[in-house]
Amino acid sequence: MANPSILILAGDGIGPEVMAEVKKIIGWFGTKRGIAFDVTEDLVGGCAYDAHGTPLTDATMAKAQEVDAVLLGAVGGPKYDVLDFSVKPERGLLRLRKEMDLFSNLRPAQCFDALADFSSLKKDVVAGLDIVIVRELTSGVYFGEPRGIFTEGNERVGINTQRYTESEIARVARSAFELARRRNNKVCSMEKANVMESGILWRQVVQEVHDKEYPDVELSHMYADAGAMQLCRWPKQFDVIVTDNLFGDLLSDMAAMLTGSLGMLPSASLGQPMANGRPKALYEPVHGSAPDIAGQGKANPIACVLSFAMALRYSFDLGDEAARVEKAVEKVLADGVRTADLMGPEGGKPVTTSQMGDAIIAAL
Amino acid sequence: MANPSILILAGDGIGPEVMAEVKKIIGWFGTKRGIAFDVTEDLVGGCAYDAHGTPLTDATMAKAQEVDAVLLGAVGGPKYDVLDFSVKPERGLLRLRKEMDLFSNLRPAQCFDALADFSSLKKDVVAGLDIVIVRELTSGVYFGEPRGIFTEGNERVGINTQRYTESEIARVARSAFELARRRNNKVCSMEKANVMESGILWRQVVQEVHDKEYPDVELSHMYADAGAMQLCRWPKQFDVIVTDNLFGDLLSDMAAMLTGSLGMLPSASLGQPMANGRPKALYEPVHGSAPDIAGQGKANPIACVLSFAMALRYSFDLGDEAARVEKAVEKVLADGVRTADLMGPEGGKPVTTSQMGDAIIAAL
Ligand SMILES: CC(C)[C@H](C(=O)O)[C@@H](O)C(=O)O
Ligand SMILES: CC(C)[C@H](C(=O)O)[C@@H](O)C(=O)O
Repeated sequence: MANPSILILAGDGIGPEVMAEVKKIIGWFGTKRGIAFDVTEDLVGGCAYDAHGTPLTDATMAKAQEVDAVLLGAVGGPKYDVLDFSVKPERGLLRLRKEMDLFSNLRPAQCFDALADFSSLKKDVVAGLDIVIVRELTSGVYFGEPRGIFTEGNERVGINTQRYTESEIARVARSAFELARRRNNKVCSMEKANVMESGILWRQVVQEVHDKEYPDVELSHMYADAGAMQLCRWPKQFDVIVTDNLFGDLLSDMAAMLTGSLGMLPSASLGQPMANGRPKALYEPVHGSAPDIAGQGKANPIACVLSFAMALRYSFDLGDEAARVEKAVEKVLADGVRTADLMGPEGGKPVTTSQMGDAIIAAL
Repeated sequence: MANPSILILAGDGIGPEVMAEVKKIIGWFGTKRGIAFDVTEDLVGGCAYDAHGTPLTDATMAKAQEVDAVLLGAVGGPKYDVLDFSVKPERGLLRLRKEMDLFSNLRPAQCFDALADFSSLKKDVVAGLDIVIVRELTSGVYFGEPRGIFTEGNERVGINTQRYTESEIARVARSAFELARRRNNKVCSMEKANVMESGILWRQVVQEVHDKEYPDVELSHMYADAGAMQLCRWPKQFDVIVTDNLFGDLLSDMAAMLTGSLGMLPSASLGQPMANGRPKALYEPVHGSAPDIAGQGKANPIACVLSFAMALRYSFDLGDEAARVEKAVEKVLADGVRTADLMGPEGGKPVTTSQMGDAIIAAL
C-alpha cells in the first residue's frame, strides 16, 4: 500500500518557519515510528501570487484534491494589501476550502494549564477550558451570490448574500453532533433567528437533525450576540458550539483569544469521505501569518504542530500517535520551554522556533 | 414654548420595573429643577402583541415619530417564542429603528470602578475602560432584500442580504468621527473587507469621509474577527469603534459583557435632525427583558436611568443635568448600594429596584 500523502502549503509570513518544525516531526515519525508519509510542497497565498500571479494555481488545487491531507501554514501580509480582491492571498485559502468542500471547520479553544496566566480573563474562568467551535466553512455570506460593488443612481452599493440550504446546515450539524458524542455530549447552536430568516432555517434544521438522528445529545440554541457574551462570561458552560461561517469566524477567534493560548491552537477543516474512506481535509493553525515577526525565528510552532496532530487523528486514524504529539507539547510547556510569545512577566530566555521544535521531538 | 416630549415604551419583562425608576427621576427634574417633560406612555413588544396582535401599532409608531425622544425598556420573553417572525416582540423594536431612521447606535462599554471585580476579565484589563461602539442600525443584513425561506428543488434555502449604500456608510462614519472629536479623537472601523465586498466598500467610504472631512481624527481599520480578539485582549486600545449592524450587534454585546457592568450600560440610537434641530432619538438599556427575574423587584434600573441621562445630553442639550444623573449613580455605587445582580462573593443585602431608584434620587 502506498504511504499516506500530505501536501504542505506553508504560505506566507511565519508559515514556512512553523512548518519547518512540522517537517522535522514528520521525519521523526518515519525514522522512529516507521510511519512514513509521502510529502509534497507547494505555494499558496502571497508567495504563490509572487511566483504565478495567483494565490493558488490550478495545478496546486488539483494536487490538494488528490492528497490525503493538506497542511497549511498561514497566508497574507501587508505587501499584498494593495492587490485586487480577486488575487489577494486569502482567495487561495478560500478556494481550497470551497473546492475541497471542507464544510466542517473544527476549532478547539483549549486553555493550556501552563499558560492560563496569559489570558486576559481571570484564571478560574479559563483554566481547564476545553471547547470546540464547529464552524460551517463552505457557504453563507463567504460564498453567496449576488455579491459585489454596484452603482445605483449616483452612488455605490456593496452587496453580499447570506445563503444556506437545508443540506448544508444538516451536514455541519451532524458533524457537530458526532463530535459531541465523543466529548461531553452537548451542542449549542448559534445564529440570529430573531433577525435573519437564514437563522430561522438554521435553527429548525439543527433541531430536526437532532430529534431524528441525535436525540441523545443535549442541544440548546442561543442568539449569536448572547453567545459572544456568554463566551466572555463563562466559556466552560459550552462543550461543542455549531455556527455558520461568519459568526464562526468571529466567535472562534474570540474563543481562541480567551484561552490566552492563541499561538497554540490548531484547526481542522473536514469534507466528505474520499474513495479511501478518509475525509477531504486541511489542517492549519488558528493564528495568522504574523508578518511583524516573520523570518526572525520568534514564531511559536506549536499551533502548527498540533494541527499535524489533528491530521494524525482525523485523517490517518492514528489517535494514539496524535496523543503522543500532544503529550510531548504538554511536557515541553510544563518543563518551561517558551517561545517569545509565551514569556511571562517573570522573564527568562525564550527559545527559537527551531529550538521549540527540537524540544518537542526530544519529548516525543 | 412647549415642554420637550418623551414617549415611554417600557415593554416586556423587567422593562416596566426599571422604567418606573426613570419616571421617578423625570418627576424629580420637574419638581426640583423646574425641567418639565411631557410624558406619554404606550406599548411595544410582547405586551403590544397581547393587546393589539402586533408588537407595534401604527398609532404608536406615529407617536414615536412626533416626540423629541423615545425611552424604551426591553422587549421579548419566552411566552412569545412561538409567535411568527413577523409579529415577534423584536419586530416592534426593529420597526422603530427603521422608520425613525435611527442609523447611529451609540453603545458605551464603560467599566464602573466599583464593579471592575465583576468582570470575567482581569482587573487591569478592564478597570477604567471607556469606549463607545457606534453601530449602524438601519441597514445591512437586518433589513436587506431579498430575504426569506424559499424552496429550491426539494429543499429549503434561507436567504438574507447584506446591503450598504455609500451614503449609509458615510453618515454613520460621520457620527463616529464627530463623537471621537469629543472624546480621544480615535476611530477604529471594523468589517470583513478580506471576504465581503460590502466590507470593501465600507472601508473605502469610511476612509474617504475621514480624508475629506475629519483628517484630524486618527483612523484605523481592522477585520471584525481580529477586532473581536483585540476587544478581549486589550480593549483599552480603542476609543470609538464604528461597524455595521450585524458586527455591531455581536461586538457591542461582547464589549458590554467585558466590563462586568452589563446591568449598567445605556445606549442611544440617533437619526437625522428634526425641524426643531433635535435628532430623532431612542434610548434603551443594553440588557434585555430578563424574564427570569421579572416582577420580583430584583432588576437593576441603572442602565435605564443612564439611558435617560443620554437623552438629557443628546436630545435635550442638558449635558450638565446628564452629568448630575451620572454622578448620582456613581455616588450610590461608591456608597455600596447594590441590586442583586451586583452582589459580590462578600455578600450583603441587596436593595430592590425601587430602593435603588430612591437612592439615586437621594443622591441627585
Ligand atoms: C483569512 C480569512 C479569509 C479567514 C476567514 O475569514 O475565514 C480567517 O480569518 C480564518 O478565520 O480562517
Ligand atoms: C432584540 C434584537 C433584535 C436586537 C438586535 O439584534 O439588534 C438586540 O440584540 C440589540 O442588540 O439591540
